[in-house]
Amino acid sequence: MNTYWNRIVHGLTPYAPGEQPNQPGLIKLNTNENPYPPSPRVLHALREQLDARLRLYPDPDARRLKQAISVVHGVKPEQVFVGNGSDEVMAHVFHALLKHELPVLFPDVTYGFYPVYCGLYGIAFTEVPLAPDFSLNLADCERPNGGVVFPNPNAPTGRALARSEIERFVQCNTDSVVVVDEAYADFGTESVAPLVARYPNLLSVHTLSKSRSLAGLRVGYALGDAGLIDGLERVKNSFNSYPLDRLAQAGAAAALEDVDHFERTRRAVMESREWLARALGALGFQVVPSSANFLLAHHPRCDAQWLLSELRHRNILVRHFRRPRIEQHLRISIGTREECERLVAALAELTDISRLPTAATIHP
Amino acid sequence: MNTYWNRIVHGLTPYAPGEQPNQPGLIKLNTNENPYPPSPRVLHALREQLDARLRLYPDPDARRLKQAISVVHGVKPEQVFVGNGSDEVMAHVFHALLKHELPVLFPDVTYGFYPVYCGLYGIAFTEVPLAPDFSLNLADCERPNGGVVFPNPNAPTGRALARSEIERFVQCNTDSVVVVDEAYADFGTESVAPLVARYPNLLSVHTLSKSRSLAGLRVGYALGDAGLIDGLERVKNSFNSYPLDRLAQAGAAAALEDVDHFERTRRAVMESREWLARALGALGFQVVPSSANFLLAHHPRCDAQWLLSELRHRNILVRHFRRPRIEQHLRISIGTREECERLVAALAELTDISRLPTAATIHP
Repeated sequence: MNTYWNRIVHGLTPYAPGEQPNQPGLIKLNTNENPYPPSPRVLHALREQLDARLRLYPDPDARRLKQAISVVHGVKPEQVFVGNGSDEVMAHVFHALLKHELPVLFPDVTYGFYPVYCGLYGIAFTEVPLAPDFSLNLADCERPNGGVVFPNPNAPTGRALARSEIERFVQCNTDSVVVVDEAYADFGTESVAPLVARYPNLLSVHTLSKSRSLAGLRVGYALGDAGLIDGLERVKNSFNSYPLDRLAQAGAAAALEDVDHFERTRRAVMESREWLARALGALGFQVVPSSANFLLAHHPRCDAQWLLSELRHRNILVRHFRRPRIEQHLRISIGTREECERLVAALAELTDISRLPTAATIHP
Repeated sequence: MNTYWNRIVHGLTPYAPGEQPNQPGLIKLNTNENPYPPSPRVLHALREQLDARLRLYPDPDARRLKQAISVVHGVKPEQVFVGNGSDEVMAHVFHALLKHELPVLFPDVTYGFYPVYCGLYGIAFTEVPLAPDFSLNLADCERPNGGVVFPNPNAPTGRALARSEIERFVQCNTDSVVVVDEAYADFGTESVAPLVARYPNLLSVHTLSKSRSLAGLRVGYALGDAGLIDGLERVKNSFNSYPLDRLAQAGAAAALEDVDHFERTRRAVMESREWLARALGALGFQVVPSSANFLLAHHPRCDAQWLLSELRHRNILVRHFRRPRIEQHLRISIGTREECERLVAALAELTDISRLPTAATIHP
């Protein structure tokens, strides 16, 4: 408590990201980073920027980067908004497009930053319960609202909706914006990007942190009708003229232009995901079908926090959320095949029923 | 206008930064960039980061950078807040610390982003008139307020207040925060940084864009009581966990550690400033005494917009603000000595009274 704080600051519960320890030898499967390095073309583009031009401001409109994004998705540059990671993009989306009288709707099990943005901007929200299998039925969002936002595939479940289902919903939900957070869509989900030119109320949000292996560079973007993008630009330009530095703009454009590297690495991640899902299933885990670069899984006999802590002792980091409905689940980012194999070996030992200590079993 | 926008978006007048043309041969004196390149240690530190680690998120708490800042200013790391340029830092300052019932106070001639932040966050403000010589009398701010913010030296005037004057004001203005925007303080103004440990209501804001030649890297920071910093962290962590990418964190720390480069380049800028002020005076300009890396000047006979446009034709960019009290002034960033000399040669020709066209003279 501090008397100099604006009153909303006292009530904020900031988002807590997964830990980023600086410990060598760790198998880091806790923050959905890509196990493969970024394209060599990114490193080359970054090297080209390392000179006296760093004394000059970057392009405040990131035109070269917007051009590269527009080519990838077949949209116009004026249908592209860029920001310092998709978290910043989403913050501006909540402020510019989702703050209205009626509550914003999002799933009850979803990305934990959404309620945090609502707290920051004073936005009312209603959580829409997912089905017992964690699937989202958009018919449950057919009610008066100030906006609808969900990740597709959803996080941390990994479950995806088909583009046609989302399109039907966008056609009936015309009084507010439908925001599809496509942070993980490149790992096997249909993006709604091809639809944005047709609907003035649809926004598709992307990040280079996952499928482009650039979590360390902080670049995200949104695709939508030029009217929605203009609203986002007005807020961004009232906040910070230059959120993307010279290096981030150049590196991101290079990443988007290396189609081969992108295809090769995302396919490798998807293959490892299928292998890991089968291997976890063979150990007795129940695994939510995933279209993302992570799996949400729980073991009917082993306590999730115990598993988390035992894996940690074995230098393997995964993520656990103390939240209703998923407190007995672990979210496991897809590593390299070797990392996945080492995780499975550790879990095989830990879930061996003949050796399970009392502390490890779930107390209903 | 767009029905999907939050109503505040319609009323926003975003900040318009100086243009960033990509034209070779231009003498660019319009956005207060440093004419000298950043420290070679910055380029080395950036090169060291160009590898597979870019796939990993950066440190959300920027601990290594906060450590480097704390050494420069002799404060504790928990008295340091970092952000994506001082514009982002200031945005969070307005949101977290200056949004109250009473209006924020700032000078009538000052950095044009302050009223923009107020528009974004719905903050009432009152402009405090500067004296005719553009000096700020802090006694004029001794009234009920929700916060007081001013650059020191002021922008775009360049005029500075002594630290002792600010300290006296901080001692009497205890009900709200006093924010001293020290973007230009390294060019010859006493920073209030040594005072922050003693006053829970004082914040000192800095940028690496000017005196560290890193406008292209986007790093700024604030120094203050741990309670103020905690409020800023809560807002930042409800907005974007990782505003500074891996490269920006490493490059900024290296810049702060190269004391020699910093001292040499800032002294060169100050020497050129004194030379340019004398040269402009000799041409008949009235120059506001500056402690920054720019000069605000006007010529009693020559229209500022005409000069701006004629300089542009000669490939020299300076800045002009269509704002009350300074519409006949030009703001000129300090370039290299050679750039300053070429500017003076062009202005000598333009202000030659015997050749002045009618369009060039000021119409009262």
